[in-house]
Amino acid sequence: MSTTQFDVIVIGGGPGGYVAAIRAAQLGLKAAVVETAQLGGICLNWGCIPTKALLRASEINHLLHNLDEFGFAADNVRFDFTKVVKRSRKVSAQLSAGVSHLLKKNGVTVVNGFGRLAGTQGTLRKVSVTSDGGETIVTAPNVILATGARARVLPGLEPDGRLVWSYREAMVPTELPRSLLVIGSGAIGVEFASFYRNMGAEVTIVEVADRILPVEDAEISTFARKALEKQGMKILTSAKLGRIGKDGDSVTVEVTAGGKTQSVVVERVISAVGIVGNVENIGLEGTAIEVDRTHIKVDPYCRTGEKGVYAIGDIASPPWLAHKASHEGVMVAEQIAGRTVHPISPLNIPGCTYCRPQVASVGMTEERAKAAGHKIRVGRFPFIGNGKAIAMGEPEGLVKTIFDEGTGELLGAHMVGPEVTEMIQGYVIARTGELTDAELKETVFPHPTISETMHEAVLAAYDGALHI
Amino acid sequence: MSTTQFDVIVIGGGPGGYVAAIRAAQLGLKAAVVETAQLGGICLNWGCIPTKALLRASEINHLLHNLDEFGFAADNVRFDFTKVVKRSRKVSAQLSAGVSHLLKKNGVTVVNGFGRLAGTQGTLRKVSVTSDGGETIVTAPNVILATGARARVLPGLEPDGRLVWSYREAMVPTELPRSLLVIGSGAIGVEFASFYRNMGAEVTIVEVADRILPVEDAEISTFARKALEKQGMKILTSAKLGRIGKDGDSVTVEVTAGGKTQSVVVERVISAVGIVGNVENIGLEGTAIEVDRTHIKVDPYCRTGEKGVYAIGDIASPPWLAHKASHEGVMVAEQIAGRTVHPISPLNIPGCTYCRPQVASVGMTEERAKAAGHKIRVGRFPFIGNGKAIAMGEPEGLVKTIFDEGTGELLGAHMVGPEVTEMIQGYVIARTGELTDAELKETVFPHPTISETMHEAVLAAYDGALHI
Repeated sequence: MSTTQFDVIVIGGGPGGYVAAIRAAQLGLKAAVVETAQLGGICLNWGCIPTKALLRASEINHLLHNLDEFGFAADNVRFDFTKVVKRSRKVSAQLSAGVSHLLKKNGVTVVNGFGRLAGTQGTLRKVSVTSDGGETIVTAPNVILATGARARVLPGLEPDGRLVWSYREAMVPTELPRSLLVIGSGAIGVEFASFYRNMGAEVTIVEVADRILPVEDAEISTFARKALEKQGMKILTSAKLGRIGKDGDSVTVEVTAGGKTQSVVVERVISAVGIVGNVENIGLEGTAIEVDRTHIKVDPYCRTGEKGVYAIGDIASPPWLAHKASHEGVMVAEQIAGRTVHPISPLNIPGCTYCRPQVASVGMTEERAKAAGHKIRVGRFPFIGNGKAIAMGEPEGLVKTIFDEGTGELLGAHMVGPEVTEMIQGYVIARTGELTDAELKETVFPHPTISETMHEAVLAAYDGALHI
Repeated sequence: MSTTQFDVIVIGGGPGGYVAAIRAAQLGLKAAVVETAQLGGICLNWGCIPTKALLRASEINHLLHNLDEFGFAADNVRFDFTKVVKRSRKVSAQLSAGVSHLLKKNGVTVVNGFGRLAGTQGTLRKVSVTSDGGETIVTAPNVILATGARARVLPGLEPDGRLVWSYREAMVPTELPRSLLVIGSGAIGVEFASFYRNMGAEVTIVEVADRILPVEDAEISTFARKALEKQGMKILTSAKLGRIGKDGDSVTVEVTAGGKTQSVVVERVISAVGIVGNVENIGLEGTAIEVDRTHIKVDPYCRTGEKGVYAIGDIASPPWLAHKASHEGVMVAEQIAGRTVHPISPLNIPGCTYCRPQVASVGMTEERAKAAGHKIRVGRFPFIGNGKAIAMGEPEGLVKTIFDEGTGELLGAHMVGPEVTEMIQGYVIARTGELTDAELKETVFPHPTISETMHEAVLAAYDGALHI
């Protein structure tokens, strides 16, 4: 059995893992990525990327059924569901191949197999990699754990590949179900609900919390709910699941909400009730690495209890988002290379949901800002006051800003509407650069753009909105 | 003849003018707007806004002819050109009515008629307003000139309402011309070219400069040219116009470019060769207000040579963009109300062209940065390295950043690709907040978004791009 020595070994080839390895290699370190499945991880193969391809299709379907508004017409509008899904898989395959190419180009070694910590050898850490071909040991002074997470499974709602789906099955349907129950209204649940609804399915969302997208600001959540309901979705909040019965080609789920119990009968159920970290069998036993529920405890520099062992991405602390993972990957790689790095503030990490209308936010919600003791100023601006939104035929949206009254700090920014996932970065830059209301007011946003709503929402917090 | 006294009178109800009046009213001033045509000015009625509605239609037409790529199909795809144009007019009418409502709501008086400076009366300035109903005199200690601009006319290419169009006629066509010559490749020319080409017309662009969109960075200009040519446009640069002949339903234009003279025969010609300021008949004679060619000379606070008389927007200094005008409107209104204001740096004013692919930029081009003596670092990132762009089926684009090597200041940012007009504001915020490469590198851009290209282009300037 031969062993190869590296400067850094990354276990997991998802967005955090492969980015860490590339950055390490850029900085002159000898880096390896251990991956048992496809490069790019869930995000690229079964998450962010393929869902965006699907959502693009559902946006097109929506447009095709509203052509008249724009002066267009077409007969016999149709889609080939297999082709829609196939395109999404092709996009994933293309990007996964791209990651492979990037790793090669940067001189990163890819080790195929299941990686686990396997003790030390002097100052080096051993990583065991098992695959069909047997076991290999690789060593390095630094190991980055980036094994990610998987869908949490509710008892009685185990994905069966037929009637009950996790995100995996939901992403590769062979035909469009006529009716669908989505359990959980976080980003993943709402995105699937939006995709299937816009493709023509009857969709019901069930959420245990008292509102959908529960991590978002309450007003944005309410706005989004109304918009989704207007599209014909049924939404049950503060809801509890009861008996679940499966039939030949349908599922009956007992749901109690608003003091009323009803039986929801659907063709398919998507379970989207959160994630659990992949902490099993990766050699944590007997180490000083601590696990809190299913996630590894890390300090702000992503260091675990073991010297030289880092954890990043979904296996580490929240928010469990790909861009947090890759940013941590860069931060840890630079740290290992001896550079000065800064921890990432969770309040500077944006969150996006790509439903129609989209939702995007960064920083504190109003509720949280108040709970943190801030005296706040709040600004709101609706898209109906924006010329470009009207010209695009997309006047449904809202921007909300929250400032600290004393310092003018932008505590949080919350958006719902078209293209907000592409726009939120402006507020993220402002937060990262510690800008205040003064700089944001002075910023000249281009006209005519929907992004002008971002300016108006700042002005509104200081009683100076112009177009409302 | 009765006279009414105001605190501030704005001559011109375009985006600079009406915003100035609203802001003045918000700050407790008694404000009036004098307007001879529709409220909202060219921008809202004959410029930015209706063209965006038209361009939305052309994007839809493009998509409808590429449905197969996304798994969709439709038969007999068609548009009703009259309905497309009508929708665009409806959007303008809706927004113009909105401006009227906003002025009313804020307590601004609208005076219909043609306004001009008409001497003083003590410390007050007199403004004469003439309309069918005769002449009215209104007075105020402060007057803001915001009369805007109109299309420059080339001799021999005077708009004739039939064969030769200015932007006005180009915006309300009764039918789609089969072939079109666009003279001038600034934002207006290129946007019309993009609209008509994507609706199905044969389009030729003629530009006297050596490249299209001459104010943009040369690389972006080259990228945009290639993209437009790939769509089937003919583009002639360093081109000179010769003899122009008009026929019953066609125009023959002699064009010399690349040492070769050719006759271009088209159904319609759009002349988009810049603007001239509306400085005539507004009472500048005998005042200390200076005019440079057709624009009023102002200091960085928009003050003219006459105390209490300001000029904003297209009648004042470049760039001649609506968002510059409205920002100046706010700045001047606050100044009059006694607030401390800051001049706007032209380098912090973004510019956008809404063709397909879109173009957006802020700050210095590479050429200009070098000419200004900066030692620079340049970063580039193509959209083909971006997952969301690929998932959307829009992989054609480029971001280019220019930093000062010594200070890390973001000197300029230049984008071409889908949605860049909505994204550029992130860089504008960074420039306004005087952020450097350090803050931009630390910013966590959400995944998966096209805006990640903005981050990668920063990393690329410092040899740290991850996905290329």
